[in-house]
Amino acid sequence: MNTRQRPIGVFDSGIGGLTVVHALRELLPNERIYYLGDTARVPYGGKSAATIERYSLEITEMLLAENCKTIVVACNTASALALPRLESTTPIPVTGVIRPGAQAAVAATRNGHIGVIGTRATIRSGAYERALRTFDPIVRITARACPLFVPLIEEGWLEGEVTDRVVRQYLTPLVEEGVDTLVLGCTHYPLLREAIGRFLGESVTLVDSAQNCATAVMRLLEEEDLRADLDAVGQLSVALTDPPDAFLDVAIEALQLDLGPVQVRPVLHPR
Amino acid sequence: MNTRQRPIGVFDSGIGGLTVVHALRELLPNERIYYLGDTARVPYGGKSAATIERYSLEITEMLLAENCKTIVVACNTASALALPRLESTTPIPVTGVIRPGAQAAVAATRNGHIGVIGTRATIRSGAYERALRTFDPIVRITARACPLFVPLIEEGWLEGEVTDRVVRQYLTPLVEEGVDTLVLGCTHYPLLREAIGRFLGESVTLVDSAQNCATAVMRLLEEEDLRADLDAVGQLSVALTDPPDAFLDVAIEALQLDLGPVQVRPVLHPR
Repeated sequence: MNTRQRPIGVFDSGIGGLTVVHALRELLPNERIYYLGDTARVPYGGKSAATIERYSLEITEMLLAENCKTIVVACNTASALALPRLESTTPIPVTGVIRPGAQAAVAATRNGHIGVIGTRATIRSGAYERALRTFDPIVRITARACPLFVPLIEEGWLEGEVTDRVVRQYLTPLVEEGVDTLVLGCTHYPLLREAIGRFLGESVTLVDSAQNCATAVMRLLEEEDLRADLDAVGQLSVALTDPPDAFLDVAIEALQLDLGPVQVRPVLHPR
Repeated sequence: MNTRQRPIGVFDSGIGGLTVVHALRELLPNERIYYLGDTARVPYGGKSAATIERYSLEITEMLLAENCKTIVVACNTASALALPRLESTTPIPVTGVIRPGAQAAVAATRNGHIGVIGTRATIRSGAYERALRTFDPIVRITARACPLFVPLIEEGWLEGEVTDRVVRQYLTPLVEEGVDTLVLGCTHYPLLREAIGRFLGESVTLVDSAQNCATAVMRLLEEEDLRADLDAVGQLSVALTDPPDAFLDVAIEALQLDLGPVQVRPVLHPR
């Protein structure tokens, strides 16, 4: 098959990476996308660096077997902990979500003070600090883990009193410290965008790592001459390592994704 | 080694099963306990029946290799989905948390209307309904999944405004339907006991599946002549499939457990 017609492989620890798929579909409607969510082991965000790296390598192997032309790590936790290893072991280009988000945040800030929110593992890794400082060595950064955001979203509580209070509890320190830009450093978080935006008000710019990642993928495909033909018919295939639960419906509805039957593909463990 | 001196093997998807360990230590201070938490794949509560069964079998194999004399499934989700399979494949006695909790709930109710709360997988399985009806065929049951309780507890938010509102949101329908007894059908939930009890008031009896499970284990050991000698020195070993995170400290402090260094033991995958 012509390399350009091969699919873009996208993975996440679960369903959250569908926010990246949504952005890719808007930007690159002619591409075939193969999405693999590791729902049998979700979430990655509270697990150790070694385990997150191992899981990411296993899922990437499954995407390589699908003959993908490039791989998108649509998960901040896997991008933060596993990207260097994936880049060095994978024969095709790999794009994560952190570098594009960091670049957009540095472009957006006016007072030079950027907030970053994400899972425990992402924040603990310091990956955003490193990426932000490659674009602006003197930027000020306030980072905070928000472990309840993912379960809130997966429960479908995108709005309401509980959500507003959790948002306030996590984000008040960032407001008090004076960030003017906030990186939504988890691919689930765009689903809480309205609740977060309402609390922060218009003076804080939200940087959606999903959106910026999709733009980086488009640039990569252009630079490497890997874009599908403009008359090609785009397509989305979704596979999960465990059968879907209710959250898939929450995500599909919120993102208005059009997807066919979901495949279930257990992880194969190398020995 | 004398069979009676062999350890009791206890497992959970993560750290929540330490509530059962706490109850076992109080009741059986002379026993050696080997606890294995599958933190590399936690939580089980949102996953499929087939995956939960497979994970439970893999963890049980690891406990059998520790020469345990009996196995305690200190996880409601694994008890709900995997107990029949574990009982039929394991050469030593297996105790789950559901049957003891159901028995205690039937003994406690005065109006014959019992509430059950747990993870999505536990509630969806109908395991509590079946167990409750073996003790009282005409009992009325109202069951509800409370997926945010575990992440709230793991964040260490055992008290506070957010916790009180989440408790209210989940439990209001149970109160309105008139349950007079509530089974805490997840081994994490005793850590929310105060917040839940404050909301429900004294007219609703809380049934702690951890406590009742420990009593069932004590009876089993007596019936099978498996109790450690009364002059034996009890001991607790904790192993996890992924290195511990902050929640281990929350649990140790809340349960006042005395444990030595935590081992990390990756899951071995049979092919």
